[in-house]
Amino acid sequence: MTALFADRHIGTDTAAQKQMLAALGYPSVDALVDAAIPAGIRLPADAATTLPPAASEVEALAELRALAERNRVARPMIGLGYHGTVTPAVIQRNVLENPSWYTAYTPYQPEISQGRLEALINFQTMVTDLTGLATANASMLDEGTAVVEGMLLARRASGSSSNVFLVDADALPRTKELLRHRAEAVGIVLHETSYDMSPPPADLDVFGAFIQYPGASGRLWNPAEVVAAVKAQGGITVLAADLLSLALVTSPGELGADVAVGTTQRFGVPLGFGGPHAGYMAVRAGLERQLPGRLVGVSQDADGYPAYRLSLQTREQHIRREKATSNICTAQVLLAVMASMYAVYHGPRGIKAIAHHANRMANLIADALREGGVTPLHELFFDTVTVRVPGRAAQVVASADAEGVLLWQVDADTVQFSTDETTTAADALVVLRAVLGDAAPAGLGFKPISRSIDPDHMRQTEYLTHPVFTTHHSETGMMRYLKYLADKDYALDRGMIPLGSCTMKLNAATEMAAVTWPEFANLHPLAPEADTAGYLQLIEQLSGWLADVTGYDEVSLQPNAGSQGELAGLLAIRGYHLANGENRTVCLIPSSAHGTNAASAVLAGMKVVVVACDELGNVDLDDLRTKVAEHADDLAALMVTYPSTHGVYEHEIRAVTDAVHAAGGQVYVDGANLNALLGYARFGDFGGDVSHLNLHKTFCIPHGGGGPGVGPVAAKAHLAPFLPGAGGDVHANPISSAPHGSPSILPISWAYVRMMGAEGLRRATGAAVLAANYIAVRLREHYPVLYAGDNGLVAHECILDLRPLREATGVTVDDVAKRLIDYGFHAPTMSFPVAGTLMVEPTESEDLAELDRFVEAMIAIRAEADAVGAGEWPAGDNPLANAPHTAESVIAGEWTHPYSREQAVYPVHTLVHGGKYWPPVRRIDQAYGDRNLVCACPPVEAFA
Amino acid sequence: MTALFADRHIGTDTAAQKQMLAALGYPSVDALVDAAIPAGIRLPADAATTLPPAASEVEALAELRALAERNRVARPMIGLGYHGTVTPAVIQRNVLENPSWYTAYTPYQPEISQGRLEALINFQTMVTDLTGLATANASMLDEGTAVVEGMLLARRASGSSSNVFLVDADALPRTKELLRHRAEAVGIVLHETSYDMSPPPADLDVFGAFIQYPGASGRLWNPAEVVAAVKAQGGITVLAADLLSLALVTSPGELGADVAVGTTQRFGVPLGFGGPHAGYMAVRAGLERQLPGRLVGVSQDADGYPAYRLSLQTREQHIRREKATSNICTAQVLLAVMASMYAVYHGPRGIKAIAHHANRMANLIADALREGGVTPLHELFFDTVTVRVPGRAAQVVASADAEGVLLWQVDADTVQFSTDETTTAADALVVLRAVLGDAAPAGLGFKPISRSIDPDHMRQTEYLTHPVFTTHHSETGMMRYLKYLADKDYALDRGMIPLGSCTMKLNAATEMAAVTWPEFANLHPLAPEADTAGYLQLIEQLSGWLADVTGYDEVSLQPNAGSQGELAGLLAIRGYHLANGENRTVCLIPSSAHGTNAASAVLAGMKVVVVACDELGNVDLDDLRTKVAEHADDLAALMVTYPSTHGVYEHEIRAVTDAVHAAGGQVYVDGANLNALLGYARFGDFGGDVSHLNLHKTFCIPHGGGGPGVGPVAAKAHLAPFLPGAGGDVHANPISSAPHGSPSILPISWAYVRMMGAEGLRRATGAAVLAANYIAVRLREHYPVLYAGDNGLVAHECILDLRPLREATGVTVDDVAKRLIDYGFHAPTMSFPVAGTLMVEPTESEDLAELDRFVEAMIAIRAEADAVGAGEWPAGDNPLANAPHTAESVIAGEWTHPYSREQAVYPVHTLVHGGKYWPPVRRIDQAYGDRNLVCACPPVEAFA
Repeated sequence: MTALFADRHIGTDTAAQKQMLAALGYPSVDALVDAAIPAGIRLPADAATTLPPAASEVEALAELRALAERNRVARPMIGLGYHGTVTPAVIQRNVLENPSWYTAYTPYQPEISQGRLEALINFQTMVTDLTGLATANASMLDEGTAVVEGMLLARRASGSSSNVFLVDADALPRTKELLRHRAEAVGIVLHETSYDMSPPPADLDVFGAFIQYPGASGRLWNPAEVVAAVKAQGGITVLAADLLSLALVTSPGELGADVAVGTTQRFGVPLGFGGPHAGYMAVRAGLERQLPGRLVGVSQDADGYPAYRLSLQTREQHIRREKATSNICTAQVLLAVMASMYAVYHGPRGIKAIAHHANRMANLIADALREGGVTPLHELFFDTVTVRVPGRAAQVVASADAEGVLLWQVDADTVQFSTDETTTAADALVVLRAVLGDAAPAGLGFKPISRSIDPDHMRQTEYLTHPVFTTHHSETGMMRYLKYLADKDYALDRGMIPLGSCTMKLNAATEMAAVTWPEFANLHPLAPEADTAGYLQLIEQLSGWLADVTGYDEVSLQPNAGSQGELAGLLAIRGYHLANGENRTVCLIPSSAHGTNAASAVLAGMKVVVVACDELGNVDLDDLRTKVAEHADDLAALMVTYPSTHGVYEHEIRAVTDAVHAAGGQVYVDGANLNALLGYARFGDFGGDVSHLNLHKTFCIPHGGGGPGVGPVAAKAHLAPFLPGAGGDVHANPISSAPHGSPSILPISWAYVRMMGAEGLRRATGAAVLAANYIAVRLREHYPVLYAGDNGLVAHECILDLRPLREATGVTVDDVAKRLIDYGFHAPTMSFPVAGTLMVEPTESEDLAELDRFVEAMIAIRAEADAVGAGEWPAGDNPLANAPHTAESVIAGEWTHPYSREQAVYPVHTLVHGGKYWPPVRRIDQAYGDRNLVCACPPVEAFA
Repeated sequence: MTALFADRHIGTDTAAQKQMLAALGYPSVDALVDAAIPAGIRLPADAATTLPPAASEVEALAELRALAERNRVARPMIGLGYHGTVTPAVIQRNVLENPSWYTAYTPYQPEISQGRLEALINFQTMVTDLTGLATANASMLDEGTAVVEGMLLARRASGSSSNVFLVDADALPRTKELLRHRAEAVGIVLHETSYDMSPPPADLDVFGAFIQYPGASGRLWNPAEVVAAVKAQGGITVLAADLLSLALVTSPGELGADVAVGTTQRFGVPLGFGGPHAGYMAVRAGLERQLPGRLVGVSQDADGYPAYRLSLQTREQHIRREKATSNICTAQVLLAVMASMYAVYHGPRGIKAIAHHANRMANLIADALREGGVTPLHELFFDTVTVRVPGRAAQVVASADAEGVLLWQVDADTVQFSTDETTTAADALVVLRAVLGDAAPAGLGFKPISRSIDPDHMRQTEYLTHPVFTTHHSETGMMRYLKYLADKDYALDRGMIPLGSCTMKLNAATEMAAVTWPEFANLHPLAPEADTAGYLQLIEQLSGWLADVTGYDEVSLQPNAGSQGELAGLLAIRGYHLANGENRTVCLIPSSAHGTNAASAVLAGMKVVVVACDELGNVDLDDLRTKVAEHADDLAALMVTYPSTHGVYEHEIRAVTDAVHAAGGQVYVDGANLNALLGYARFGDFGGDVSHLNLHKTFCIPHGGGGPGVGPVAAKAHLAPFLPGAGGDVHANPISSAPHGSPSILPISWAYVRMMGAEGLRRATGAAVLAANYIAVRLREHYPVLYAGDNGLVAHECILDLRPLREATGVTVDDVAKRLIDYGFHAPTMSFPVAGTLMVEPTESEDLAELDRFVEAMIAIRAEADAVGAGEWPAGDNPLANAPHTAESVIAGEWTHPYSREQAVYPVHTLVHGGKYWPPVRRIDQAYGDRNLVCACPPVEAFA
């Protein structure tokens, strides 16, 4: 019995669709889509596909098991930024495997995101405590790209006019690759040094310096002198610090560093063949406004109660666009939550004990090696030991591999290995046998071990001192803390999150199942190919399917966020032009584009030129032609989103792409809205040269509260040599730390495509377009729908114009969004792409009952707004202005409002008797939080 | 780094324990326990143990993986009551792997259990719909014991004075074994028949008849005539009906049957090597008060709103004791929830399609067999086909086994097999190759298949017609329904459940992990031994450890509930006496015993004689000696709980057991309170001959909202031959349908013991005793502690006497229990073992903060009660009488109470800002529900 997964994934069944189609006046979904999507770009219904027919959930899981069995889980002692760690089972089950955490959205609506915001402020506090710096953000994508961001930060924040950035010769090899690739695009000159000058010269002419701390070779040294020398001449120092080592050694802040970056993977996040995991960045006081990405801060709600929110958003790419200094958007929230909870669960004593264990195991091995006549290269280290084994390196690695332990071959004469939380005496003995052969001891014994950390370099300061890190140490306590936080939040398991451009669709349990299987969770990204055959096959299949459905020739899964996919695509365009001997640097971007487009273009060394949109929301063809002509010689690319960010299928898309091609430019199609197209049309067929996709939108990877994401970059053959991992070379055009980005979440998208098949994907698109148009037609008389294509149809989302409402009643978009919380909804996207609007994307996964519930809530809110407009309620005191209402606010004290307590929180009947989501705080004062920047856990007394 | 799991399991760390000990005036936990437990029964601290030293969570999981790998997951076509099924991933993840469902307690506090009660009423509705009968209960332990319960029901409800029960010759073999074992003990004579009399004789002298429908051989026949003949002479007919088959064939109710029983395993519950899964029982109108076990009904709350609760509890063993007609207590709630959700997710059309698939696959195979020259034994069947293969049966089974498909060898000349939801064409071809050899077809083709169900016998009536079965068919919808229900309930993930005698301790995520691994989840209970080596090893290890910690020689894990363990133990005593030629039938039971003790004794054919307790809560030794003397010749056994149900360690326990032994009786020690003893004393060392344990109390199997449980029976060597599965013979003294009871949850207890080690278990006991005494000492001045041993110490629980409070203020135990909900707690055990008291068992897993939160709530409630007593609030209108308060009740309408809205729901500050659990209904009218018995889903309009 093979039930169709598509029937579970798609919320509306045949009967519901029939009813919706009747409201729209179309006889079938196909007829509706026929009317909406321009005929000229339509894929023939009988187009060939390489996608296999849809598998059932049981079949897909069986195939994933078979792939998993082709991976070998070995003991990972390779290190180099990735370490064995134990994910506490209570965190795995209650965070990583719990839809209340993994289906949440980025906390842009902070009132209904207090749980994950608290988890993230714990993360920031953990990072600032351990690094000894003032302010940390809520996660970077990985260590390597965090170093790049550190370099860019150093350039803009430094007093120096130099173009040179010092790079540690003992940096992680991958970090060097990323720095090279990214520095070149923005004109930074790298200078590699081993920092062996003592004292450092006083005339360093650099804007900054990067130090790996401890070094990639394991070398532990005190860089305080170098830091001081760089600072003395106005430079900024960026330290990539192993967070666990900081439990034992002096912190970057105490060394005088300006910026610390790194990974938090070894804080309980599975290796996952490289990702996802959360990178971090912390800065000294004075640099907080320079931080890229998201920053959680403390503000207060309408009652003055402390409440968390995202701070300083005006720095971010979606506001600053081409003036942004980073293009980071999706972060690694779910993994940051896990890492923070690891610190909460272990506490300062536990973290220190884990660091001690790693250090002690490394010392035990080093001592036994010395006794066996092999002296480690560095006397001082934290967890990584490098040894010379002239001519024998390959053999040593192979010997350990045969016993199931992975070491790292540096060169023909050198191996290195790292210890971690999971390292056992048995592992140590394997290493010793591999290096020493018959001279290896039979056991480790209990003799005193030598000291691999200089006493003067030992950390003296406290960390994780906030009570949250010492309160939840029993499993019962931890389980309840996670539940308590999850209960504060609104995620897909409560109701719809109709966020335009974000595609919050079902993340099916079967899709999620394989993520935590050991064969996918526990592989080191640098494991030998023989261990990873299943992963490589899965990556190859998924890449092939994605190329098929988008009409491209090659796909790279390396970018671990949409922003990184964009950047990789633009760098590919850049590389292509340079290879043709052309220095084209102008990137045309329509005014309606996502801000990230412009930020990415700048990071790819391009100059942004904005193209106007016409009153229908389409690219203004005349303006486009003018701009193309103006910049014909310099034209690198046009970035265009299809269907547009206005939620319509532009009929002139071919004319747009033709115009760009005619002038020698490349066309970048942003895949943000692919959910409106899949199965019906392909970017590559109507002029796209390169695109990024968002597996966390169209392909069901859950948003995780703001990450992880995967942003594959797909391109035509002529651009393929310039993609990350081109030609099977993981070192080519690198865009993320891990060679394959974030592989451990790829089984999600693999399973989705495998279970939907080409027909299912097409049906999903049809259902998504139907749902959006149904909402548009039902709400049209209450809120104008801002853009529509010919036939009056929208694509997979619709923009409700609230400006007339504000004009008439004074009620703002914000008021409506917050009032939706009282009705049990997450607000649609606010004021993008047009200020004063709500963009609604229901996706195909919502059923008709939920769509109707939303429609009825919006209609009821309209009536409330009209009552304000009619003067029934004063402008400043009505259910909208006071929304959202907490339980406390309607229970405690005198009720002084002109509407009733029931009207406040039970405006519709379905909310009573257990159906109500209660926000934990009232409306949050955004400006207060920016004026009074606090980005670490507030003291307990603040909540009294 | 091997962190100690015990430090995570035990809620109080060293610092907390020090503080608690100070309040008690003891220097150490050992000193406290020394003072509490009589020296005479103490295990020496250096006693030998066979338990291995504690493993870390990582190590335990690795060992479980190794055990799992010793099991082979084959395609299960054996049938015989166990069938392959697909657990929908959304149900597995959000129910079976979600602590909000699995850590809940039995819904005795219905106001905070509405979610699982709704799931159970869905279950009852599913069963009544499919069986065509009037009323179903909320789960039996399995099909075989449900048939036994049906037989007992028939005897008491029948008008016949006969002692004879007709048994279907084509019944499941295991059912026959259970009927034989159980009938003999209560003096019922079984008469086996193949029901081939037509017409059936008019002079049947039986009180009832049992029919397997369809037969174990697969034979599908219409028993209407037999049913009518039995009814005609006053007998009751019990049909064991395959629930899935009822989607296609005429239901028991339409056939005139009085009772239908069976299993719901194939409704999405993993095979689990036999269990757990939910049995069912449904009866015609007029028999509902005869139903054993738990029955969910609809009542109304204080506002008249429909609310669910357990109905007709006065029938149950804990009320009726030796007058009870069944000893069933723990049921199979979690599995019943899963089965009901399977029906909710698939709906009537889906269930019918699944039944069709099974039937169609069986027909396809049967047709191909006929074409190959092998005619199935029965022309009419649902899913099970029996074929004669003279002399070749073993070879046929082996041949299919070699291809990974399990068939069943009936005898040397006969095999049978069953199809199910998971059967594929490939499976069918394996069967055909095994039976037909070279004559097997290469494919199944698409030819028309014959009809194996008589058209007159096809079901014509509808089922699953309530909207709940057609509303939640998308995965998004299902996920939200499960979340919506879970949100209504209070489970261990919200806060403590300090239920005396129920030991609601941590169910650790690592303990739960292996339950859903395919190698444990997907094994058929009759799979060949070669497939189950890992399971058998796990069972042997766990049995050995349990024998070790209790001081017994043998342990049987077959009983799938505590009640069944009791019964097995008493039947062992009975068997022992009979084997010695003695007909001893008197069972002494102290007045304080659990009601189940007495009910089990009756079902074991014993006569209950109650022994008094003295004013300290101990067995009254004088009365005991009198009763022993009085019944010396007939004395079969004494059942005693240790420590006593009064929560104290009786110092004279040896005198008690000696007195019984001296008179030739056996001592049954009820293991309900083992959590107060483990590691410090052993039942077998102070006179116990046999005991049952509760793995769902002491050994961390979660309560699942009222099941599953496992009730191992442990005994001294002289009783061992009379235990279930004695001597490795699974047919010996059977007590459950599956040969090993409920193996799929045994990894939970295995992991617990493995990760605690002897020392950890001992530490847990100490922490549990410390916590109970801490609560006793802190609450003593507010509520008298009813019993205490020498030194004024209690064991692992304490009884708070609320009778003086009631006397002084009119506030009842019920008021306090419901008021605790407003404070965010599950009430302690009410009025057991003494009416008007609360019995508090905090367990070792609660941390000091939670213990203090409880203490402070109880003190605050005492103050509220005093205010009532002082006349500040009227007796009928105060925060206690009106508890629990829903959000609606404090928000909607005028507030007319003499206390404030805040006082109602925020009596303490920690409840605001997200920390509050909101009950979905107000206090439920218990009597109303019994007077107006409704045990199926109410119409939607009822909630309007």
